[in-house]
Order: sequence, then structure tokens, then C-alpha cells
Amino acid sequence: MATPREADRAPSSSSPADVPTTASLPEESAPSSRATEAELLACVALMRMAEPGERVMGRLVRRYGAVAAADQARRGVLDPEFASAETKRARAAGRMPALDRLAASWAARYADPVRDLAEGREQGARLVVPGDPEWPTQLEDLGDERPYGLWLDGAVNLRFACLRSVAIVGARAATAYGAQVAAELASGLGDRRWTVISGGAYGIDAAAHRGALASGMPTVVVLACGTDVCYPTAHQDLFRVVRSQGVVISEVPMGSRPTRPRFLVRNRLIAALSRGTVVVQAAVRSGALNTAGHASELNRHLMAVPGPITLEVSEGCHDLIRQGRAVCVTSVQEITELVGTIGGDLALERRGPVHPRDALNDETRRVLEAVPSRVGTGPAAIAVSAGVDLTTTLSCLGRLAAAGFIDQSDRGWRLRREQDR
Amino acid sequence: MATPREADRAPSSSSPADVPTTASLPEESAPSSRATEAELLACVALMRMAEPGERVMGRLVRRYGAVAAADQARRGVLDPEFASAETKRARAAGRMPALDRLAASWAARYADPVRDLAEGREQGARLVVPGDPEWPTQLEDLGDERPYGLWLDGAVNLRFACLRSVAIVGARAATAYGAQVAAELASGLGDRRWTVISGGAYGIDAAAHRGALASGMPTVVVLACGTDVCYPTAHQDLFRVVRSQGVVISEVPMGSRPTRPRFLVRNRLIAALSRGTVVVQAAVRSGALNTAGHASELNRHLMAVPGPITLEVSEGCHDLIRQGRAVCVTSVQEITELVGTIGGDLALERRGPVHPRDALNDETRRVLEAVPSRVGTGPAAIAVSAGVDLTTTLSCLGRLAAAGFIDQSDRGWRLRREQDR
Repeated sequence: MATPREADRAPSSSSPADVPTTASLPEESAPSSRATEAELLACVALMRMAEPGERVMGRLVRRYGAVAAADQARRGVLDPEFASAETKRARAAGRMPALDRLAASWAARYADPVRDLAEGREQGARLVVPGDPEWPTQLEDLGDERPYGLWLDGAVNLRFACLRSVAIVGARAATAYGAQVAAELASGLGDRRWTVISGGAYGIDAAAHRGALASGMPTVVVLACGTDVCYPTAHQDLFRVVRSQGVVISEVPMGSRPTRPRFLVRNRLIAALSRGTVVVQAAVRSGALNTAGHASELNRHLMAVPGPITLEVSEGCHDLIRQGRAVCVTSVQEITELVGTIGGDLALERRGPVHPRDALNDETRRVLEAVPSRVGTGPAAIAVSAGVDLTTTLSCLGRLAAAGFIDQSDRGWRLRREQDR
Repeated sequence: MATPREADRAPSSSSPADVPTTASLPEESAPSSRATEAELLACVALMRMAEPGERVMGRLVRRYGAVAAADQARRGVLDPEFASAETKRARAAGRMPALDRLAASWAARYADPVRDLAEGREQGARLVVPGDPEWPTQLEDLGDERPYGLWLDGAVNLRFACLRSVAIVGARAATAYGAQVAAELASGLGDRRWTVISGGAYGIDAAAHRGALASGMPTVVVLACGTDVCYPTAHQDLFRVVRSQGVVISEVPMGSRPTRPRFLVRNRLIAALSRGTVVVQAAVRSGALNTAGHASELNRHLMAVPGPITLEVSEGCHDLIRQGRAVCVTSVQEITELVGTIGGDLALERRGPVHPRDALNDETRRVLEAVPSRVGTGPAAIAVSAGVDLTTTLSCLGRLAAAGFIDQSDRGWRLRREQDR
């Protein structure tokens, strides 16, 4: 089937001649056809030419399909109708339209997609593009910032793995407490058959991936560099295990180095792939809070784990909670209650231990409090001390003795020792 | 002036003959007269006869004044009109009326108030009763559970000390973290001229008192036993310092031992005296949460400090936050913002460090990201890597060099090292 899946969103009246104006396809809730090689090549070319999350490119692809969009970008010449709409849009937003420059930069970055695709496959990765069976359809929520395609390297089907998934993100400079919490939440989520998604960084990310792997469930590493680039270098072993039990993914071409802006745009994928994001430790200004922001914008559940107020990496979490942006979560159950199906994953309300004293009525409790612990005392003294009349006191004492709270000594009533009960 | 201050709430039509039916007094916002010796003696007798917070006694005192109420209680015979109203009230609430038994228990506990008063004064304490200049008028919020009187032992005027006050409460089994947080919040509040109120117990309470003392401000210990009883015994030195710099108070007679129910009713005083309560560490079922409940009921601000989710003593705080009952607070400023005057004590929003990169526009930032850190690179390669056209790249490079971000080597542009900036 050779239909560009993106074309279904384009009004057929404005479709250029080189894009088939097929009637709109049914909603792609369960896509079942593979992309053509031409489409794959177009997406690979787009990933090389445009920065991820570039909205103008996103709209170009949505309007003309990947193949035509890649062709326009390669030539550095955009359809005049599209160009004028974009120029209007930029002016309305108060920005200087710089469309020519943008198109020229796309053209300048063009590289042979045949070689790119072959190189990726040689590295053991597979390319998944919108409309593919393995494409996670929740990425459609990103709208104009949807990725052009994803490189996947791992044993697991990305789309299935993400159906029940939670993102756990946080500080690279995590403390032992933070790492422990991330690992335990992740393995607890795994035990409940949830997939954990994170960014593969030091600290919270790594702890979360490791916790998930320990539970035997897949985990998804979303990289800001090519799937063939190991960043951070020390995570070579971690990523190797993830590839065998989960999947390492990226929206940038093979060999791409991670840059600061790429980390930030990468974060939208972590938020969009999952049903909710848990921030474990985060300084006030951090990548994790950037992911949190994406989660909110995408109407995903945003959760934050509290921690010691004496740590700087707690501040971001506490701010999210204080501002009412994130729900304070302290256990796996509290997380699954939010991201799970209603009724299926309800957190139990925490209860303290039940004391046998709780069963006593008010007067009996007052009498019990008036019974001395060592030397025995008579009922009259107990009645006065308890502020309860003698008759009532006597019947209370009988009940308390029967329940094993007190016993009688030579000198009167006294508390029964704990070990005797 | 011999008017029973409580009489002003009693409808004069139903006042018994032995209580002067004075026209209602003006609101006691700034009481200036001392109670008569007869009133003091009546209150001392009430403190001996009735349990603190006993609502029936509270209503009796409100209706007839302390002197007449003490007289009825001592005789164990209540005014028939009052008794029938109370019986009706109990039936309406579905409780078995047990008024005779209650009155009998009051009579049984009667002790000579002259001796009680003298004994308290010998111990160095002073009795303060409703209407006294030192009576904290915010205790009126307790309604029927208002204390009959308070024993005070300390250098400081209770009413003034509590005008700007915060309660800090929490677990006896506090961790080092909890104790540190309680002490630091308390001393920080002291630095801002806030009085800290707590229960004098081990753990959070003691740390809070010590922190307050360290700031040089008064602190108020509210005991569940007589002010002459040192509970816990190990706090002899602490209470001695509090008496010299603050005040130790209690609503139970000299010599009274602390009992479990007394701890619970005592907690309402801690909540009522202060403008807000901060829970630092608390297990799910704990006295601190009981105080928290009182604070909510009294419409005082309720705050909780988060902590490691791995500690049991964090659970109570996190539950309060999760249920939306308490505001999550992490600093003195966040506390004073709530309990302070509007506008006078606003917490600053926390901000991360400002990076010089923030001043750069989008293109310039992309160019900066494309500049290598060690070996220099030419502008054309940078332009391609940044996805920015060459002309723009050149002008960006100039700006970045001027701002000190990059410099030129033999082989092209490279990042300037941090220490050179």
C-alpha cells in the first residue's frame, strides 16, 4: 500500500500534484501496513535535514506527506501556498518570518537517505515511521512536533511496550535516596506489568531503568543522540541489557551527538510515550522539570516524589507539589492509581495499626488510663482518678480484666504486663 | 470588678438567682482587669473536678459563670433547666444521657481549691483564667472545649508570646533529619520574631523548642501533666530554660500525671494558641496528626513538611499533603507566607541560577551548541551542524565571541573554557 499516511490530514483541494490525493484513511488506531521504502527513505532524509520538533517541518509533513515534504526540503524550495501561510502565521505571532533561511538550512543538511538507512540497519537498528504497526500512536498528541521517524534498537515492540508505561525522570546528580526510590518504584511498576520509560542518563534515569530490568519487564531508553552513540559512555553495559530486554530509541540520525537543545526536545518524547511522568529528584531548573512541563502540556499525569527538604534535588519536586502541578506520590500503588484504569488500580488508604484499646468505649478507656502499672489500686481510687462513678468503674474493671488489659494483685487492680497478654 | 466574665454569654432570663445578671460586657479583645480570688478559686476547683475539654462542663461554665458552675459541680447537682437541656441534646445526638453520673464524678473529684491555688503558687506558677489580661483570647475559638484555666510557669507573658506564634509538632521517634528540620524551622521562625509552640515531648517537639530558644525568642511548652511534673523526665533542663526564656503551661492541676486522653485533649490547645500548625514528621496514626486535626477544625493553617518516602514517620505528612489537608512547606518563608500578614511575609518564588546562555536567541544558541569544545571548526561546518545558514552563523559567531562564549584557534572556532570566562 503506497499511500502516504500523512496525506490524510491534508485538505485534498490544496494537495500538490505530486502527492496522491487519496480519500482520507480511517483513524490509525491499529495500523497494520508497513511503510514503503520510499516513505522510509523520505523520513530518514527528514530526520537528517530538520531538527527534531521543528514545527514548520511538522506542518509541512502533515500537509504534503513525508515524501513530498522531504523533496521540498531537499530542494530548499517550499510550496508557495505553504510558504505564504507560514509567513502569515509567523507575523501573527510577532515573529520575523525566516522561512527561506530555514528551507536553505534543510537543504544544506541533506544527506543520502539510502546510505543513512543502510547504516542504521547495519548497526542493528530498525526505522519506524508514522503509520507503521510499531509506531506508538500516542505520539500523535505531539501535533506539529511529532517526530519524523524513530530509530529503534532492541528486542521489544515499542508500541506494545508503551501501552502501559510510566516515565520516571529526575536529576543526574541524584542522591542515594533518590536512586533507591527510583529503582524501587520502577521495579514495583514492573511487578505490576508497567513499562518504565526514561532518558538513560546518570542518576535517577539509570536507577529507574535498572529497577525495571530487575523486575524482568521491558524498559525504554529515549536517547538525545543516535542509537549507535553511547551517551553517557559509562552506560554501555546498561544499554546492552536494555536492548536485549527492552528497546533503545532515538529520533535523530545515527552518529548524532547529544546537544543541549536535543535533550530538551527529546524530553517531549518521554512525556508523550507514557501515560504519566514521575519526577523523583530534580533541582529547581532541570531537564526533569522540562519533561514535567511536557507531561502537563500533553495532559499526561504528572507526579512528584517528595524527599528531604535539606536536599537541593528535592526542590523541584516540592515546587511541583506546592504549585499543585504534580500529585505527591510515595508508592507504586499511588502511581498506578493515577495512570491505571479506573477501579483497577486503586491505592489502598494507609492505615495505622489497630490497637485493642480502640474497641473500648470512652468510659472504659478512662478507667483503663487510671489503673496503675505496677502497684495495685482499689476501685474507689480508680473511680476518682478516672472521673467515673464507682458502679460504672466496677463494671469497666470487669470488662478490662476479661479482655486481658488488667489483673488483680493483693493490693488491687494493676495493668497486665505486655508479655502476659 | 466582681463580674463573672462568663456570665456575659448567658441569657440573663435564665440565670439562676446566685449569679449576677449583669448586662453583657463588651467584647474582651483587650481584657484589662484581673479575676477576683473567688473566680480563681472556682476555676482551680473546675480544673480539679472536670476533665479538660469536657463539653458539658464547658457549657455549664458558659451559662452560669465559673463560680456558679463550680458550686453546682461540687454539690453534684445541676440546675434542672440546664440538666434537661443537656439531656435533650444527648438524646438528639443519639447518646444515652449520663448527666447524673457525670455530675457525681465531678463532685467525687472535688478538692479544696484554696490548697490547690496555694500549692501552685508555691511551685512558682500563676493561674490565668478567661478574662485575665494574660488570657490568650484565641482560646475562645475552642467554644465548649475552652480550658477552665491555665497554670503558667515562665518569665514570658503568654498572651503576647502567642500573638505571632506557630506550632511545630511531630513524632517522638523522629529521625535526625526530622529533628534537624524542626530545629532549623523553629530558629528561623524565631529570627523572624515568631514564637514556637509545642508539646515538650521527645523528638520533633524538643527539637522545635531548642531551635526556638537558640534564636533567643520565647517558646511555649503545653504540657499534658501539671506544670510541676516533668514529663518526660529527661527534659528537666529543657523545661528549666523554657521557664526562664518562655513559658510552660498546662490546663490540669498541679501534680497531675499525663494520661493518653490528656495528651489528645492537650493537643487542641497547641493548635488553638497558634496561627498555624506545622507537622514535621508523623506516623500515620499519631498525636501530631491529632493536633493537625484540631488545627483544621479551628480553621488554623495546617502545614506539613515532606521527607524521605522511605521513612515511616514521613507517611503522616505525605498523607496530609496528598489529601490536600495540609500545605506542603519546605522553608521558614513558606510558613510565614501562610501565617503572616498578607503582603508582609510573602515567600519568594524559588529560582534557579541565571545562565548567560538564557540571553541568547534561538539561532545563536543553536550555533553555540554546534561549536566544538576542543578542536576548532570552520563556520561552514558549524552552519551545517546547527542547521543555520552561513551568513546568520557568521554573525552569531561574532556575537558569541564578543560575549566570551567562544574563541578562535588556528583551526577555527571552539568553546572558550569555563575558567577563561
